[in-house]
Amino acid sequence: MIDKIFNGRELVPAIVQDSDTNEVLMLAYMNRESYSLTLKTGTAWFFSRSRQKLWNKGETSGNFLYINDIATDCDYDTILLRVTPKGPACHTGSRSCFFNKITKA
Amino acid sequence: MIDKIFNGRELVPAIVQDSDTNEVLMLAYMNRESYSLTLKTGTAWFFSRSRQKLWNKGETSGNFLYINDIATDCDYDTILLRVTPKGPACHTGSRSCFFNKITKA
Repeated sequence: MIDKIFNGRELVPAIVQDSDTNEVLMLAYMNRESYSLTLKTGTAWFFSRSRQKLWNKGETSGNFLYINDIATDCDYDTILLRVTPKGPACHTGSRSCFFNKITKA
Repeated sequence: MIDKIFNGRELVPAIVQDSDTNEVLMLAYMNRESYSLTLKTGTAWFFSRSRQKLWNKGETSGNFLYINDIATDCDYDTILLRVTPKGPACHTGSRSCFFNKITKA
Protein backbone atom coordinates (compact mmCIF):
# COMPACT_ATOMS: atom_id res chain seq x y z
CA MET A 1 0.00 0.00 0.00
CA ILE A 2 2.79 2.41 0.90
CA ASP A 3 4.13 2.20 -2.66
CA LYS A 4 0.73 3.02 -4.11
CA ILE A 5 0.41 6.07 -1.86
CA PHE A 6 3.89 7.51 -2.31
CA ASN A 7 4.35 6.54 -5.94
CA GLY A 8 5.77 9.77 -7.36
CA ARG A 9 4.31 11.83 -4.52
CA GLU A 10 6.44 13.35 -1.79
CA LEU A 11 3.55 14.38 0.44
CA VAL A 12 -0.10 13.41 0.72
CA PRO A 13 -2.78 15.09 2.82
CA ALA A 14 -3.99 13.17 5.87
CA ILE A 15 -7.41 13.99 7.29
CA VAL A 16 -7.75 13.37 11.03
CA GLN A 17 -11.18 12.36 12.30
CA ASP A 18 -12.26 11.57 15.87
CA SER A 19 -13.40 7.91 15.92
CA ASP A 20 -15.95 8.50 18.66
CA THR A 21 -17.62 11.73 17.56
CA ASN A 22 -16.72 11.60 13.82
CA GLU A 23 -15.66 15.24 14.08
CA VAL A 24 -12.97 16.26 11.57
CA LEU A 25 -10.13 17.56 13.73
CA MET A 26 -7.34 18.66 11.41
CA LEU A 27 -5.45 18.03 8.19
CA ALA A 28 -1.70 17.63 7.91
CA TYR A 29 0.74 16.10 5.42
CA MET A 30 2.50 12.76 5.48
CA ASN A 31 5.60 11.60 3.67
CA ARG A 32 6.65 7.97 3.42
CA GLU A 33 8.62 8.08 6.66
CA SER A 34 5.87 9.69 8.73
CA TYR A 35 3.39 7.15 7.36
CA SER A 36 5.68 4.27 8.39
CA LEU A 37 6.21 5.74 11.86
CA THR A 38 2.45 6.16 12.29
CA LEU A 39 1.88 2.47 11.52
CA LYS A 40 4.78 1.45 13.73
CA THR A 41 4.05 3.60 16.80
CA GLY A 42 0.24 3.85 16.74
CA THR A 43 0.32 7.64 17.05
CA ALA A 44 0.13 10.13 14.18
CA TRP A 45 3.33 11.42 12.58
CA PHE A 46 3.35 14.09 9.90
CA PHE A 47 5.83 16.05 7.83
CA SER A 48 5.76 19.75 8.61
CA ARG A 49 5.95 21.76 5.38
CA SER A 50 6.87 24.97 7.20
CA ARG A 51 9.57 23.40 9.40
CA GLN A 52 10.57 20.76 6.82
CA LYS A 53 10.81 18.05 9.42
CA LEU A 54 9.07 14.98 10.80
CA TRP A 55 6.62 15.75 13.53
CA ASN A 56 5.03 13.38 16.03
CA LYS A 57 1.81 15.26 16.77
CA GLY A 58 1.78 15.79 20.55
CA GLU A 59 5.54 15.60 20.99
CA THR A 60 5.60 19.05 22.60
CA SER A 61 1.96 19.55 23.68
CA GLY A 62 1.31 16.01 24.90
CA ASN A 63 -1.80 15.98 22.70
CA PHE A 64 -1.08 12.79 20.81
CA LEU A 65 -3.46 11.26 18.28
CA TYR A 66 -3.90 7.53 18.91
CA ILE A 67 -4.67 5.67 15.70
CA ASN A 68 -7.69 3.39 15.47
CA ASP A 69 -8.07 2.97 11.70
CA ILE A 70 -6.34 4.15 8.56
CA ALA A 71 -7.80 4.25 5.07
CA THR A 72 -6.85 5.76 1.74
CA ASP A 73 -9.19 7.05 -0.89
CA CYS A 74 -9.98 5.45 -4.24
CA ASP A 75 -6.89 6.80 -5.99
CA TYR A 76 -4.50 6.45 -3.05
CA ASP A 77 -3.59 10.13 -2.80
CA THR A 78 -5.34 11.04 0.46
CA ILE A 79 -5.20 9.34 3.85
CA LEU A 80 -7.93 9.25 6.48
CA LEU A 81 -6.83 8.67 10.07
CA ARG A 82 -9.51 7.79 12.58
CA VAL A 83 -8.12 8.52 16.01
CA THR A 84 -8.68 8.96 19.71
CA PRO A 85 -7.24 12.41 20.46
CA LYS A 86 -5.57 13.08 23.79
CA GLY A 87 -6.66 16.65 24.46
CA PRO A 88 -7.36 19.32 21.84
CA ALA A 89 -6.06 18.59 18.35
CA CYS A 90 -5.56 22.26 17.45
CA HIS A 91 -2.56 24.26 18.61
CA THR A 92 -5.01 27.06 19.56
CA GLY A 93 -6.52 24.81 22.25
CA SER A 94 -9.64 24.13 20.19
CA ARG A 95 -10.82 20.53 19.92
CA SER A 96 -10.89 20.84 16.12
CA CYS A 97 -8.96 23.19 13.82
CA PHE A 98 -12.09 23.88 11.76
CA PHE A 99 -13.61 26.67 13.83
CA ASN A 100 -13.62 29.43 11.18
CA LYS A 101 -17.17 29.17 9.88
CA ILE A 102 -17.75 30.74 6.48
CA THR A 103 -21.41 30.30 5.75
CA LYS A 104 -24.46 28.35 6.71
CA ALA A 105 -27.13 27.58 4.18
CA MET B 1 -12.03 35.22 4.08
CA ILE B 2 -11.28 34.34 0.45
CA ASP B 3 -8.12 36.48 0.57
CA LYS B 4 -6.91 34.72 3.70
CA ILE B 5 -7.43 31.32 2.09
CA PHE B 6 -5.90 32.03 -1.31
CA ASN B 7 -3.16 34.37 -0.13
CA GLY B 8 -0.18 33.05 -2.08
CA ARG B 9 -1.83 29.66 -2.55
CA GLU B 10 -3.19 28.46 -5.87
CA LEU B 11 -5.01 25.41 -4.52
CA VAL B 12 -6.17 24.31 -1.09
CA PRO B 13 -7.52 20.89 -0.10
CA ALA B 14 -11.24 20.69 0.63
CA ILE B 15 -12.51 17.84 2.81
CA VAL B 16 -16.08 16.79 2.07
CA GLN B 17 -18.11 15.45 5.00
CA ASP B 18 -21.72 14.22 5.03
CA SER B 19 -23.68 16.54 7.36
CA ASP B 20 -26.09 13.82 8.43
CA THR B 21 -23.79 10.87 9.03
CA ASN B 22 -20.51 12.80 9.57
CA GLU B 23 -18.83 10.34 7.20
CA VAL B 24 -15.82 11.76 5.35
CA LEU B 25 -16.70 11.31 1.68
CA MET B 26 -13.79 12.65 -0.38
CA LEU B 27 -11.08 15.27 -0.69
CA ALA B 28 -10.56 17.50 -3.70
CA TYR B 29 -8.84 20.82 -4.39
CA MET B 30 -10.27 24.30 -4.70
CA ASN B 31 -8.88 27.40 -6.34
CA ARG B 32 -10.28 30.87 -5.82
CA GLU B 33 -12.78 30.53 -8.63
CA SER B 34 -14.16 27.16 -7.55
CA TYR B 35 -14.50 28.47 -4.01
CA SER B 36 -16.50 31.47 -5.26
CA LEU B 37 -18.71 29.27 -7.44
CA THR B 38 -19.37 26.97 -4.48
CA LEU B 39 -20.56 29.89 -2.36
CA LYS B 40 -22.61 31.28 -5.23
CA THR B 41 -24.31 28.09 -6.43
CA GLY B 42 -24.62 26.06 -3.21
CA THR B 43 -23.04 22.99 -4.79
CA ALA B 44 -19.38 21.98 -4.59
CA TRP B 45 -16.96 23.11 -7.31
CA PHE B 46 -13.35 22.00 -7.41
CA PHE B 47 -10.29 22.43 -9.59
CA SER B 48 -9.17 19.18 -11.16
CA ARG B 49 -5.37 18.90 -10.99
CA SER B 50 -5.27 16.12 -13.59
CA ARG B 51 -7.58 17.84 -16.08
CA GLN B 52 -6.51 21.38 -15.11
CA LYS B 53 -10.06 22.67 -15.17
CA LEU B 54 -12.96 23.75 -13.00
CA TRP B 55 -15.26 20.94 -12.08
CA ASN B 56 -18.78 21.11 -10.65
CA LYS B 57 -18.92 17.77 -8.81
CA GLY B 58 -21.95 15.95 -10.24
CA GLU B 59 -21.93 17.75 -13.58
CA THR B 60 -21.65 14.46 -15.46
CA SER B 61 -22.81 11.88 -12.86
CA GLY B 62 -25.64 13.92 -11.38
CA ASN B 63 -24.16 13.24 -7.95
CA PHE B 64 -23.98 16.84 -6.75
CA LEU B 65 -22.83 17.83 -3.28
CA TYR B 66 -25.24 20.33 -1.71
CA ILE B 67 -23.46 22.63 0.72
CA ASN B 68 -24.75 23.05 4.26
CA ASP B 69 -21.74 24.61 6.00
CA ILE B 70 -18.24 25.68 5.12
CA ALA B 71 -15.35 26.22 7.52
CA THR B 72 -11.62 26.70 7.25
CA ASP B 73 -9.03 25.52 9.70
CA CYS B 74 -7.00 27.65 12.10
CA ASP B 75 -4.43 28.73 9.50
CA TYR B 76 -6.83 29.08 6.57
CA ASP B 77 -5.16 26.51 4.33
CA THR B 78 -7.76 23.73 4.42
CA ILE B 79 -11.50 23.89 3.78
CA LEU B 80 -14.17 21.65 5.30
CA LEU B 81 -17.41 21.32 3.35
CA ARG B 82 -20.35 19.77 5.17
CA VAL B 83 -22.78 18.59 2.55
CA THR B 84 -25.84 16.60 1.62
CA PRO B 85 -24.65 14.27 -1.15
CA LYS B 86 -26.98 13.32 -3.97
CA GLY B 87 -25.97 9.71 -4.57
CA PRO B 88 -22.51 8.22 -4.10
CA ALA B 89 -19.67 10.73 -3.78
CA CYS B 90 -17.05 8.42 -5.27
CA HIS B 91 -16.71 7.85 -9.01
CA THR B 92 -16.48 4.11 -8.25
CA GLY B 93 -20.07 4.14 -7.01
CA SER B 94 -19.03 3.94 -3.37
CA ARG B 95 -20.69 6.31 -0.92
CA SER B 96 -17.27 7.46 0.31
CA CYS B 97 -13.89 7.39 -1.46
CA PHE B 98 -12.16 6.11 1.69
CA PHE B 99 -12.79 2.39 1.27
CA ASN B 100 -9.18 1.18 1.14
CA LYS B 101 -8.62 0.15 4.75
CA ILE B 102 -5.00 -0.10 5.80
CA THR B 103 -5.07 -1.27 9.38
CA LYS B 104 -7.22 -1.53 12.43
CA ALA B 105 -5.70 -1.23 15.87
